[in-house]
Amino acid sequence: MYQETKDRFTTMIDFFNSIIPLKQEEKELIRQYFHLRSYKKRMFVLQEGDVCQHLNFVLCGCLRMYKDDENGSPHILLFATEGSWINDLDSYYQEKKSLLNIDVLENAELLQISRQDIVKLYLNAPKFDRIFRILTEKNLVLLQNRMLENISLSAEDRYYNFLSNHPDLINRIPQVHIASYLGVSAEFISRLRSRRARNPLMGN
Amino acid sequence: MYQETKDRFTTMIDFFNSIIPLKQEEKELIRQYFHLRSYKKRMFVLQEGDVCQHLNFVLCGCLRMYKDDENGSPHILLFATEGSWINDLDSYYQEKKSLLNIDVLENAELLQISRQDIVKLYLNAPKFDRIFRILTEKNLVLLQNRMLENISLSAEDRYYNFLSNHPDLINRIPQVHIASYLGVSAEFISRLRSRRARNPLMGN
Repeated sequence: MYQETKDRFTTMIDFFNSIIPLKQEEKELIRQYFHLRSYKKRMFVLQEGDVCQHLNFVLCGCLRMYKDDENGSPHILLFATEGSWINDLDSYYQEKKSLLNIDVLENAELLQISRQDIVKLYLNAPKFDRIFRILTEKNLVLLQNRMLENISLSAEDRYYNFLSNHPDLINRIPQVHIASYLGVSAEFISRLRSRRARNPLMGN
Repeated sequence: MYQETKDRFTTMIDFFNSIIPLKQEEKELIRQYFHLRSYKKRMFVLQEGDVCQHLNFVLCGCLRMYKDDENGSPHILLFATEGSWINDLDSYYQEKKSLLNIDVLENAELLQISRQDIVKLYLNAPKFDRIFRILTEKNLVLLQNRMLENISLSAEDRYYNFLSNHPDLINRIPQVHIASYLGVSAEFISRLRSRRARNPLMGN
């Protein structure tokens, strides 16, 4: 079991190492401050009204972050699978109640770090400030591109872009969640799919 | 003139200092690496097809970052006024041609730092990795909230949210640009405004 856990940390160390090479003592800090946690499908990693206690790195599985509107309909901000992060940064750093939920669509294993421990990590190894600056900049660019799509493309084009940008997700995520992520109705996607089934050459 | 320029740097130093207190030598690095540049209304700070050469901190004035669609209609990602940043990070760091434009809506003064100089700044004073990590995290949270609004609120509610969240911008930015930022038509906003003029109690 220890060996297994150790191997899981290696995945994360490789991830950081690909951004900036780490020294041995920096690798040890990762093993010290991150903790492995398993979640089953339908469990919550964060529920609205709680303060987000951890940054979450996904080793395996699939999760979504979303907000319920006043009618109880979920609006999905983010999907996360292997090698990505899923956090409510605002709640995590400001220690304020989250408006968001993070739940598990497929059994998942996460490496988590608490607010106290990431502060220690930054103090003990300032290189992680640089690593997380770069990671956050990349996420900002991705979100900016998605925002641009949302204000400039038709719902139909956004759906076909999603298909071509996330071929890995199509069979893992129920259609209703993809609709919620794109800000369209599930019926709208069903209509597109049946039109596409009748004419396979349309769309991307 | 030198004194004036120096005072402008003080604005930026105070901005960074409010995030993490700076030492004297770190303040000097800011004076060394940032450069003052004035732009007149309608000038471009970045044009699509160029590589974004600078990070831009706004001392005064008003700018927008946008993408033209294939019909030549602009879709606005961001407005920036005093004390904020306006950059195509993707183009800046990856040294790739930008798809975006940044132009000047009101005569502006910017403090700019080049790609080469920000690398020197990070190497000479790693505290700036932490400062820019924090800044980027804040921008990510803001953009995430805007994304959430875009997929969960009606166009009408998004417009009234914009009015209440940016009362300072309403009289500075033409209505047509606000429409483009919200992803609605200018006619839609005109209809809302005239409805509101007939019934001042509606909306926020």
